[in-house]
Amino acid sequence: MNDLSFPNCEFENRAARVQASMRHRELDALVLTAPANFRYFTGLDSQFWESPARPWFLVIPAQGSTIAVIPEIAEVAMKQCVAGSIKTWPSPRPEDEGVTLLASVLESVPRRFAKIGFELGRESFLRMPVLDFLRLRDLLSGVQIVDGAPCIWEVRNIKSKAEIEKIRLAGHIVSHSFEAVASYASKGMTEAEVCRSLTVDILQKGAHSVPYVACASGQGGYDQIIARGGQRELRDGDVLIIDVGATVDGYFCDFDRNYAVGKVADRAMRANEAVWDATEAGIKAARSGVKVRDLWQTMMRVLHAAGMRGNNAGRLGHGLGLQLTEPPSNCEADEAMLEPGMVITIEPGMEYEEGKLIVHEENIAITEDGFADVLTIRAPREMWRLS
Amino acid sequence: MNDLSFPNCEFENRAARVQASMRHRELDALVLTAPANFRYFTGLDSQFWESPARPWFLVIPAQGSTIAVIPEIAEVAMKQCVAGSIKTWPSPRPEDEGVTLLASVLESVPRRFAKIGFELGRESFLRMPVLDFLRLRDLLSGVQIVDGAPCIWEVRNIKSKAEIEKIRLAGHIVSHSFEAVASYASKGMTEAEVCRSLTVDILQKGAHSVPYVACASGQGGYDQIIARGGQRELRDGDVLIIDVGATVDGYFCDFDRNYAVGKVADRAMRANEAVWDATEAGIKAARSGVKVRDLWQTMMRVLHAAGMRGNNAGRLGHGLGLQLTEPPSNCEADEAMLEPGMVITIEPGMEYEEGKLIVHEENIAITEDGFADVLTIRAPREMWRLS
Repeated sequence: MNDLSFPNCEFENRAARVQASMRHRELDALVLTAPANFRYFTGLDSQFWESPARPWFLVIPAQGSTIAVIPEIAEVAMKQCVAGSIKTWPSPRPEDEGVTLLASVLESVPRRFAKIGFELGRESFLRMPVLDFLRLRDLLSGVQIVDGAPCIWEVRNIKSKAEIEKIRLAGHIVSHSFEAVASYASKGMTEAEVCRSLTVDILQKGAHSVPYVACASGQGGYDQIIARGGQRELRDGDVLIIDVGATVDGYFCDFDRNYAVGKVADRAMRANEAVWDATEAGIKAARSGVKVRDLWQTMMRVLHAAGMRGNNAGRLGHGLGLQLTEPPSNCEADEAMLEPGMVITIEPGMEYEEGKLIVHEENIAITEDGFADVLTIRAPREMWRLS
Repeated sequence: MNDLSFPNCEFENRAARVQASMRHRELDALVLTAPANFRYFTGLDSQFWESPARPWFLVIPAQGSTIAVIPEIAEVAMKQCVAGSIKTWPSPRPEDEGVTLLASVLESVPRRFAKIGFELGRESFLRMPVLDFLRLRDLLSGVQIVDGAPCIWEVRNIKSKAEIEKIRLAGHIVSHSFEAVASYASKGMTEAEVCRSLTVDILQKGAHSVPYVACASGQGGYDQIIARGGQRELRDGDVLIIDVGATVDGYFCDFDRNYAVGKVADRAMRANEAVWDATEAGIKAARSGVKVRDLWQTMMRVLHAAGMRGNNAGRLGHGLGLQLTEPPSNCEADEAMLEPGMVITIEPGMEYEEGKLIVHEENIAITEDGFADVLTIRAPREMWRLS
């Protein structure tokens, strides 16, 4: 056992799975730079990613152990994590920020397919300056740089039982905190004040961080769901939504709750219940072997029957794990099929009148038996009330 | 006046400054994707960046008003921010995630130099899949894609008085919270427990978010400064360090405090005072017209005289603002010169015995008069004590 959030076998299993996928996709190595990928394979728990001065690289060869190519400042912390070997450079050094060291490490990796994967594709960003990436590409002779994202998502999208328990714990903490909102929030408070109290309560109940709090309010509904809570004061007839992404050992829950402030218009209450029903239909439909587009279709039918005018989110839920959102997207265009170990949000929402949105969200895992295991404490069908 | 954190004239001034820099550097347009750059020019306050599913683009032409090219879900929130016009696409749509729309917008920008800047260089990451960037580059005929980072940092590195007041407020909130640690932290508590209480206190005192908390402890010093606080229990003779990046309206303070747990070895106390003295020397040396490398040299002299063995951070401070760290780096290789409006950390640290580090940090702004205005409440020369 180590001092990380998982036993060593968890990390060994992740490495073995990604290496199998790499060999299948004919990659000699995978180079990772993004915080969630670094944490997934090494266990590193750091918020040092907030500083853009220094890139970090994790090299996973198709066989054998990983090589962390990292700035000197990171060496001691890295030694307490999972990495086969560690190479460092003195950083910051903008004129060669790890580029030649990484190139020399990659030259030493055995070549069978002459292909190396980087985080270039779907829902992936390279956490290094693009100019350095292009320079590195030029330094690597006789090797093709290709997209490693399919490899990464194939592995990360199937969660272990231990990972699912982290998300469940986050989901339960935030569920209890959401329920407690009614005990302190009321008319006259600003959105920002409610969000601050909620964030504090989530931390006090045991979450490790609260990187995402979106909040909006308006008469009978809200007109967007992505901004932070502002200086708007809650008033009679408002519907308040708060959407929270909080973590336990890096794993996110991501779901929202709606609150009725005083007396809310009947049509808003009915729209809210319709969206709750769509959530229920989504949870019931989420089974192993079902395509996410069918899940989307099931929820859309309920929303359309309730008078949906639109939904600018472009999807009704998504994967989650070490990131607030991960593939797949529950939408018409996504080919993904649900499998045991996948964790997704069920997130129907609709504009039921112009400028009035209602959005619900719960988190589920697909069990070995193929059913949906709800990781959040299900919202009541009728909104909680604030006085 | 708007509902943003700054009056409109602040944003107008930012746009005018970056456009002057663009014309000087012969750019027809600048395309921004990173959260801090988006917020800097539009005022957008959202944590939606946690979701990697959808890129956002802000196009700043060399003359005229900005064009936000964003996913549909962001339109309503964007309308409350500063943008000349808004173009949207239905997202997620991985096969064309804004790429052709952005290309058509860029084709419509007047061409004088046939050069467009992107966030490609120093301390910049492109928040879009690299494959999409390369595809976009191919779509843009007759135009050169170049590094826009020098333009961006030239403007962002000089803060307005209003920006500096945000950082000062964050610095004062966290200073008071650091001082309060001694009232609840003591032997037997874990690092993680202390960090949680501190984070809650910082939020309750009015900071908007606390994205960075690093913590370490050890007998007479610590061996790294970047990991999150763990399950290690504080014991007699420890030095505890906590390093916090907290925000007000998106602006970071970034500084640390050291605590002596019970009776700490004399040599650790002396090392601590030497690092305090180096900080003091750094603050006094930080004046308009001084190069950051000279500032670094001034602090290094004090540390070497005190028996410094090493420092793997590679620098003794850095810029800060909308990011926890920004250029320049206070180190030998950096050519930057201090100017009025620059905000930097003064961050000397040393390994005084093997595996025993002591690091201090304060935040300063360079005033119109050319002196250092300390934005944090200066640490006492002798460490605060925990019983």
